[in-house]
Amino acid sequence: MREVRISLVGFGIVGHGVLEVVRRKWGLLRKMGLDMKVVSVTDINGTLFDETGIDPQRLHAARTLEGIANLDIIGKEAIQKVDSDLVVEVTPTNIVHGQPGLGHIEEALSSGKHVVTSNKGPLVVAYNHLQEMAQDNGVMLKYEATVGGTMPLISLVEKNLVGNEILGIRGIFNGTCNYILTRMMEEKYTYSYALTEAQDLGIAEADPAYDVDGIDTAGKVVILANSIFGMTAKYEDVSVTGIREITPEALNLAWERGYHIKLIGEVPALTVKPMLVPRRSPLAVGGTLNVASIETDLSGTITVTGLGAGSIETASAIVSDIVSIYTSRQIDG
Amino acid sequence: MREVRISLVGFGIVGHGVLEVVRRKWGLLRKMGLDMKVVSVTDINGTLFDETGIDPQRLHAARTLEGIANLDIIGKEAIQKVDSDLVVEVTPTNIVHGQPGLGHIEEALSSGKHVVTSNKGPLVVAYNHLQEMAQDNGVMLKYEATVGGTMPLISLVEKNLVGNEILGIRGIFNGTCNYILTRMMEEKYTYSYALTEAQDLGIAEADPAYDVDGIDTAGKVVILANSIFGMTAKYEDVSVTGIREITPEALNLAWERGYHIKLIGEVPALTVKPMLVPRRSPLAVGGTLNVASIETDLSGTITVTGLGAGSIETASAIVSDIVSIYTSRQIDG
Repeated sequence: MREVRISLVGFGIVGHGVLEVVRRKWGLLRKMGLDMKVVSVTDINGTLFDETGIDPQRLHAARTLEGIANLDIIGKEAIQKVDSDLVVEVTPTNIVHGQPGLGHIEEALSSGKHVVTSNKGPLVVAYNHLQEMAQDNGVMLKYEATVGGTMPLISLVEKNLVGNEILGIRGIFNGTCNYILTRMMEEKYTYSYALTEAQDLGIAEADPAYDVDGIDTAGKVVILANSIFGMTAKYEDVSVTGIREITPEALNLAWERGYHIKLIGEVPALTVKPMLVPRRSPLAVGGTLNVASIETDLSGTITVTGLGAGSIETASAIVSDIVSIYTSRQIDG
Repeated sequence: MREVRISLVGFGIVGHGVLEVVRRKWGLLRKMGLDMKVVSVTDINGTLFDETGIDPQRLHAARTLEGIANLDIIGKEAIQKVDSDLVVEVTPTNIVHGQPGLGHIEEALSSGKHVVTSNKGPLVVAYNHLQEMAQDNGVMLKYEATVGGTMPLISLVEKNLVGNEILGIRGIFNGTCNYILTRMMEEKYTYSYALTEAQDLGIAEADPAYDVDGIDTAGKVVILANSIFGMTAKYEDVSVTGIREITPEALNLAWERGYHIKLIGEVPALTVKPMLVPRRSPLAVGGTLNVASIETDLSGTITVTGLGAGSIETASAIVSDIVSIYTSRQIDG
C-alpha cells in the first residue's frame, strides 16, 4: 500500500469537491494500492492539519477555514512546512500574473512535491518554466482539469494516442459561451437576453467578460499549445474575438445553410473566434458542453465531449491525475 | 532502451498497417525508450522470420507470404517457436467459435508472451478465460482495436476515468450501419439502395449480414460487458435487432420530431437495436463514424467519436496498446 499525503491549497468549490471525491473513492483507491489522505487544507485564514487525514464531514458546511484552522501558516509557508507528497493547487485563477497559484506551485515543486492543479493562470503564464522545475526536482506537474473540465483531453493525447503526431486541436472550451450561443439559436434570443438567462442560472458570472470575450478560451489555447505542441506561446500571442457581436440573425442564417456558430479555440493556430461548424460535425454540441477534435496523423480525427465544469467533476479529473502520477513510469532498459 | 520483439500473426489489411506504423514511428518509439521490431510475420503459407526486424518495404506489395516465408511453421507452432516478447494477433475474426485467433492467443499467453489484438472473436467467446490466462502467466492482453476502431474507449475508461464508476455505455459501434442510415436520412434512399451504394464504396461487404443484422455490434457489446463491467456475458445474451426493416419514412418522421435513428449498442443492458437519438445529442454523428457515450458517477457523461476502421488507424490503436504494456505498472508500496 502506497501512502499519498495530500496538501490541499485553496478551499473553494473545487477544493470541497476534492475532499468529497477522496472520501467517496477511498475504498476504491485502496484497492488500487493507494492510501490517499488529505493531511492539510489551506486558505487565507490558515491551515487545518491532521496527519491521519482530514474528515471532510468536518468541513462540509464551512465556506472558509476561519475558526477551523489549527495552524497559523498560509500559502508558500504552509506548502513548505506541511509534510506531504503532493500539493493540489485550486486557488482562484489569474491569467495575467498567475498569482497566488504560481508561487504555490513553484514552492511545491522546489520542495520535491508533485503538483496537481485546476488553476489555469500559473500554466498560462509559466508552463515551460514549471515543467522544467518539475523535471529538475524529479516530480510531476499534472493539470488535466485546466482544460475542458471533465473531458479528458491532455491525458487522451498523452496516454491513448501514443505514437500519433497531433496535427491540430480545435474545440469549444467554454461552456458559458456555448450555452449563450445555443439559447440564441434555439430560442432566437438576443445576446443580452441569453446572457441574462445564463447569469440567472449561475452559468455566467455577474461580470461575464472573462468568458464571453474569449479570455478563458485563449488561456486554454495557450496551455494546449505549450503542453501538447511544445510551443512557447503567451496569452498575447493568441488572436481573440469573443461572442458579444453575434446576432440571432447571424445564427439563423448559418442554421439555414446547415451550420452552427460556435466560439472555437484552435491550436497550433492560436486563435479564438466565432466559427461556422457544420451541423453534422461532432463539434456541433449544444448547451454547456465542451468538445475537442484532435486531428492526428495515424488515427484520423478523434473527438471528445464532456461537461465543462462542476465541483465533483473537476475534482474527479484531479484525482485521476493523482492516480496517474503513481501508476505511470518511464521505460527502463 | 527496451527491446520489444513482436510476432505478427495474420497478414491482411491490419497486419500490413502494423508493419507500416512500426516503421513510420520507429524513431519516435525509440525516443520513448522502446526498440520495437517485428521479428516474424505468419500467415497460412508459413512464417517470415528476421531477428533483426523485418523491413516492411519487402512486404509492401505482397498479399500473402507465399514464396516469401522462410520458415515452414504456421499458427500455434509459429507462436511457440519464434523467440518474441509479444504477439499481435490480427487473423480474420469468427464470432461463433473464435478460431483460429483463440488458439493463437491461448498459445501466446501460455508461452508467457503479451498479446495485442484487433480480433473480436476470441474475446467475445472467451474474454474472462483469456484474461485469467494472462494473469496466471504474468503477461498482458490488450484489445483496444476490437471496439470502436480508432476511438479510444477501453483505454479511456481504464486510464482517463480512473476513480469513476462506469454506470453505462451506449454507442454506435458499426460504421457500415451508420453510413447506411445517414444516407437513407439525408438522401431519402431506401435501405437496399443505400446498402448498394455502401457496397460500391467498399463500406459494406458483399454479404452485409454481419454488419446490418447487428452481429458485429453485439460482439462489441459482449467485449465491453465483460471487460468494463466485469460480466460473464455471451453473444447469446445480447438482444439484437438490425437495421434491415428501417424505412426512409421512419427516418423522416423521426427527423421532423428532432431525432435521428441510429443502431445503438448498450451495456450493461446487453441490447443492440435501432433507437431514437436527439439531433442535439453528442451521439448523433453521421457517416461512418463510431461514437460512445460513457455515463460515470463523478465525471458526468463523456462522449468520444472517431473513425470506425481503417488499416493504419486500427494499427495505430494496436501500437498504442503495445506502448501501454511497457509504460503502465502496478503500484508498489
